[in-house]
Amino acid sequence: MAARRFIAITGGVGGAKLALGLTQLLAPNEISFIVNTGDDFEHLGLHVSPDIDTLVYTLSGQSNTETGWGRRGETWQFMHALREFGGETWFNLGDLDLALHVRRTQRLREGATLTAVTRELAAALGVGYDVLPMSDAPVRTMIGTPAGELAFQHYFVRDRCAPTVTGFRFAGADSATISPQIVDRLTDPALAGIIVCPSNPFVSVDPVLAVPGMRKLLAAAGVPIVAVSPIVAGLAIKGPTAKMMTELAIPNSAVAVAAHYRDLVDGFVVDVQDAALEADVAALGLRTVVAQTVMLSLADRKQLAADVLQFVRHLNK
Amino acid sequence: MAARRFIAITGGVGGAKLALGLTQLLAPNEISFIVNTGDDFEHLGLHVSPDIDTLVYTLSGQSNTETGWGRRGETWQFMHALREFGGETWFNLGDLDLALHVRRTQRLREGATLTAVTRELAAALGVGYDVLPMSDAPVRTMIGTPAGELAFQHYFVRDRCAPTVTGFRFAGADSATISPQIVDRLTDPALAGIIVCPSNPFVSVDPVLAVPGMRKLLAAAGVPIVAVSPIVAGLAIKGPTAKMMTELAIPNSAVAVAAHYRDLVDGFVVDVQDAALEADVAALGLRTVVAQTVMLSLADRKQLAADVLQFVRHLNK
Repeated sequence: MAARRFIAITGGVGGAKLALGLTQLLAPNEISFIVNTGDDFEHLGLHVSPDIDTLVYTLSGQSNTETGWGRRGETWQFMHALREFGGETWFNLGDLDLALHVRRTQRLREGATLTAVTRELAAALGVGYDVLPMSDAPVRTMIGTPAGELAFQHYFVRDRCAPTVTGFRFAGADSATISPQIVDRLTDPALAGIIVCPSNPFVSVDPVLAVPGMRKLLAAAGVPIVAVSPIVAGLAIKGPTAKMMTELAIPNSAVAVAAHYRDLVDGFVVDVQDAALEADVAALGLRTVVAQTVMLSLADRKQLAADVLQFVRHLNK
Repeated sequence: MAARRFIAITGGVGGAKLALGLTQLLAPNEISFIVNTGDDFEHLGLHVSPDIDTLVYTLSGQSNTETGWGRRGETWQFMHALREFGGETWFNLGDLDLALHVRRTQRLREGATLTAVTRELAAALGVGYDVLPMSDAPVRTMIGTPAGELAFQHYFVRDRCAPTVTGFRFAGADSATISPQIVDRLTDPALAGIIVCPSNPFVSVDPVLAVPGMRKLLAAAGVPIVAVSPIVAGLAIKGPTAKMMTELAIPNSAVAVAAHYRDLVDGFVVDVQDAALEADVAALGLRTVVAQTVMLSLADRKQLAADVLQFVRHLNK
């Protein structure tokens, strides 16, 4: 299998955990990551790409395990001074983290693509894996609420996911295009499988799928596509997935997530706590496997990655 | 004299010292500062205004006395991370300092004038004095060298003033305009005098004078204008003034500075160490006073301010 390649679609923290597990088992020429940029935003004049950064910090061992987000060894002098100057402080930008945003913004203004800049920044932190933004064009996840639409970070960070969610819109998606790098990876004859990480289906994975041509390209790859449930025992491991499902009148269960993905994926990974639901998922026409998807340790991440890869290989037979 | 107003023209660190002295003696409604913005520049996508910041940090008690520039209590996490990402690191931007540049840049992009933004930032640090950029339009000091022109900060910081100076150009000056705030202050009937601080004549004061109409407005004010020599005993207290004068084949002396200003000023303050030169300055047609212009302590700053104000008042009689 040495020459086989995999692709993983990922969003924030949950997805990055499995991504880290995958890099424990696969070399940079064996796995590429397609990352959600729907929650990117311009803040304080800087281009911030939260999901890309989460992945890059995670893969480089730079993620802040105390906060669960941002960079390790972070300090907050900038935010302290910004508060004094009356700047917006609802989105925390650490002093170290800021360098990444300033550098990215500068390179984008110079005309570099987000894909190229991401490659540079990841390389600077020693990450040799493909970290591929879903598009170089801006696609922005908008959260529908009874009081009107909110930009994703306003909903997620500023308003702490408090507003009731009524729907989603991916602004800019219509005119976005898939990057040549992603097309290249998805049409690679060595491609052996595609993994949808346990990220939020609505605001981490759906934005990726909203880029015109992405679903078609994924299907045309002709390889097994498997998703890992981000819902375990009716709860989201992290983030607002379960809350969103309740508000959207979707049952909070792995089965509902599987149903959401049924047109996309061939296989679905159910957590051991939800083993009883395996038959319901199978009834959707999906192949299933039961695994421990809750990743507390690095060993957990590696084990889940191994289980997912084995599942993909099994589906390939 | 309570209702009389003064204006001081200032550049970097030397000018800010006298400015601080003046604020020890005068209330915010009694003194306004016109500040050089010729050494402003765009760096890492941020609008940096070194002379404005030096003055604001000095007047707010936030200046870093260890480094002689920047903000006290500064940290350098951002620069550390930026180096890692391959960003330009020749211009040091501290974590605290960065907040000021990010906020300024954001406000300018929102359409605020540099004058308005400076007022906001100064107020945030408790500075109620007028800190007036010489123009809201970009004027950029270019340093002529045998190898071609250098942007000011490239000459001053990146190249540490090493290149030989052959001349100066103030790019953009032709189309710059004086801000309404400066016009207001210079046409105030209560104006009693104008002070040219001991800043570099070529790259701190001349850019201010290069804004179209500035010389005329200063002259039309009809009040005494006095300059304080930045050259003492043939040396610049700080910065490249003396080196520049040598390279431009101008004698390194207070007399040469006085000659440079003779069409602008009525009076000239000579340092006690240069008392012997007083007659030569007077021979240029200028009124003179001898004072201790080297400001090591706050008491020195206050004393020089008092001497300068007394000189102006004397010339007003």
